[in-house]
Amino acid sequence: MAVGDLSMPTMHPINGVRIGIAEAYIRYKNRRDLVVFELSPTTTTAAVFTTNAFCAAPVHVARANLRATNSRYLIINTGNANAGTGKIGMTNAERSCVALAELAKVVPEAVLPFSTGVIGEQLPIAKLEAGLPAALAALQADNWPAAATGIMTTDTLPKGASEQFVVDGVTYTITGISKGAGMIRPNMATMLGFVATDVAVERELLQLLLREVTEQSFNRVTIDGDTSTNDACVLVATGAAANVPLSQRQGALFDAFYGALQRVFIRLAQLIVRDGEGATKFITVKVEGGANTQECCDVAYAVAHSPLIKTAFFASDPNWGRILAAIGRSGVPNLDVSKINVYLDDVCICEDGGAAASYREELGAAVMQQPEIMIRIVLGRGDTSDTVWTCDFSYDYVKINADYRS
Amino acid sequence: MAVGDLSMPTMHPINGVRIGIAEAYIRYKNRRDLVVFELSPTTTTAAVFTTNAFCAAPVHVARANLRATNSRYLIINTGNANAGTGKIGMTNAERSCVALAELAKVVPEAVLPFSTGVIGEQLPIAKLEAGLPAALAALQADNWPAAATGIMTTDTLPKGASEQFVVDGVTYTITGISKGAGMIRPNMATMLGFVATDVAVERELLQLLLREVTEQSFNRVTIDGDTSTNDACVLVATGAAANVPLSQRQGALFDAFYGALQRVFIRLAQLIVRDGEGATKFITVKVEGGANTQECCDVAYAVAHSPLIKTAFFASDPNWGRILAAIGRSGVPNLDVSKINVYLDDVCICEDGGAAASYREELGAAVMQQPEIMIRIVLGRGDTSDTVWTCDFSYDYVKINADYRS
Repeated sequence: MAVGDLSMPTMHPINGVRIGIAEAYIRYKNRRDLVVFELSPTTTTAAVFTTNAFCAAPVHVARANLRATNSRYLIINTGNANAGTGKIGMTNAERSCVALAELAKVVPEAVLPFSTGVIGEQLPIAKLEAGLPAALAALQADNWPAAATGIMTTDTLPKGASEQFVVDGVTYTITGISKGAGMIRPNMATMLGFVATDVAVERELLQLLLREVTEQSFNRVTIDGDTSTNDACVLVATGAAANVPLSQRQGALFDAFYGALQRVFIRLAQLIVRDGEGATKFITVKVEGGANTQECCDVAYAVAHSPLIKTAFFASDPNWGRILAAIGRSGVPNLDVSKINVYLDDVCICEDGGAAASYREELGAAVMQQPEIMIRIVLGRGDTSDTVWTCDFSYDYVKINADYRS
Repeated sequence: MAVGDLSMPTMHPINGVRIGIAEAYIRYKNRRDLVVFELSPTTTTAAVFTTNAFCAAPVHVARANLRATNSRYLIINTGNANAGTGKIGMTNAERSCVALAELAKVVPEAVLPFSTGVIGEQLPIAKLEAGLPAALAALQADNWPAAATGIMTTDTLPKGASEQFVVDGVTYTITGISKGAGMIRPNMATMLGFVATDVAVERELLQLLLREVTEQSFNRVTIDGDTSTNDACVLVATGAAANVPLSQRQGALFDAFYGALQRVFIRLAQLIVRDGEGATKFITVKVEGGANTQECCDVAYAVAHSPLIKTAFFASDPNWGRILAAIGRSGVPNLDVSKINVYLDDVCICEDGGAAASYREELGAAVMQQPEIMIRIVLGRGDTSDTVWTCDFSYDYVKINADYRS
């Protein structure tokens, strides 16, 4: 059950990007499980990948190819993660690039491969190769919604975001898709996000901006604390808008672009949590008054990962004792609990480290009935704040993960 | 559903320790929820407490009283944790000591208070005080099994361990009880453990040994990663055996005592996991070939805390991809995944970082049918090993924690 409005917005095409979808029978029948992005020759590409030491074969190959040359194609399969697959897995990831390169008449390094699905089984490379001609034949600029569907695994809904903004009379566009519902605690990127813009941006700046907005979005969501082996997020700038390529963090175009980029990324990241496996509540954990970002995040993740808190939210139980316990074990040095206040939305549940004098159970219970809730924690140690988004922990999380082989 | 044999063994009394149980109506009717330990004047006492910054009022008081004088009484209530209760909570914890001290004619500092149960509600101190005379009137040496029942919360069974050993013709005894089934990832101690011996041990050595064996036992179990606000473990040595008090780590008596102490502590710690909330499997995570203890524990806890692994074990699914993913995100620096082997009991599932050549799904599936399973991870980085015990994650974990107000 997804939380909130996850409906697909109008997905504005990006000049310079065409998308093809095909059925390759990687794992299931009757679903288009192979997606190919074609990028125009002027496109600059930035990408961030999982920090998991057991990163998947396509992550290794994509990272190397990105360094080697300009990217012209992205190839994405669902149904099989090609992770934990050793040398054969590496060979298969490379073969997928070679096969697409031959058909498209580019060098293999111009192709970045991505896989998502079951870990530990070999990628059926012949099936993938056989699906490529159909994917290329299907290339179209308006295939973004179909691509969002094509990359799903345990997601219940496709996830997309799209924005247009006008600077000096010119309309610019950012459009992106994401997927993921379990094994979600991204660290550098999520599994998976693909965002494109027609704004021309130089590659160094593009990579810098991708790291920044990823840190503010995908790196602030968690479903189960399990960082995936295949997390990757790609940002491409086709330059089709023909502006002077952005190379500095200044000017009206940069400001408008950066704002839109942040909103698209945060939306795509939050969509993953809203569609979290078994989720019935969307929870914002905001930590204020910290001495630095690290301790704000430590507290926020201790709360966001606590099975006791997540099950209490599933039960709509304003169990603030469990929140205090999680803050207390978060590892913040010399934490003075007598300075800590905690709020559920606007209701102060904990004041100076103990029950708030004004708190009554029915106030907390009323907040807990809502599908979207903010836990706000004020540490009283400094001026830094940070926010993490997560969901609750339900019977269905157990059911989904006891049934699904990820 | 508890995993394995949790039956109460013969609980040998300890000369110098008497235990009284009474019904104080702290939270529920028809259960004896108040336990008092009386310790002989020759007893030395050691204790370790939770590292949670939000530690409960009785933890503060017990820690201070332990420093102040020799302990003569322990007072334990279930049904209310007296945590997150501010100044009133501190006053109530102190009042419980004063009340018992007046009845028993000792100084208040000679009483150590312990509470377990719901967080964030004030302790009904008048009820507790009213129950004390009955508890003192019930003092008996053979009340260990009743005390194990008296300190339970969501535990399904009382937990006890007892050993006798003979050195130079003299029989010595160690007997202990523990409780806990949720909010369990002890760090310094568990919630709660009480162990007594008639061996005379000097206080400094006793505290040192308690820290050591706690590190090997209670600090190596986890159910949900949530370190409690009330964790405490007490080890008392009554000296009733009249040996020359142990002050050094040498001699036949020390060796026999230390071995028995380890076994009793590990049994008491494992009993908590075996009775973990909703547990259907008892899982030993052993990490070998690490460069140091820290990285062995980091890997072991990443695996033991992974909701994806815990739900897969609930489903008896030999999902080794999830195990690899957890190892990969454990934060071990410069982890070379190509050197890692993983075993389920004796079945090698992962060899040199990929699927083992000899592995077949039915071999893993056969291991997974067992109620007790070892995950053995060989890192290939050094000679250090460490072990953590945990349980699986079932529908019933969610049910218990969505229903119970802890």
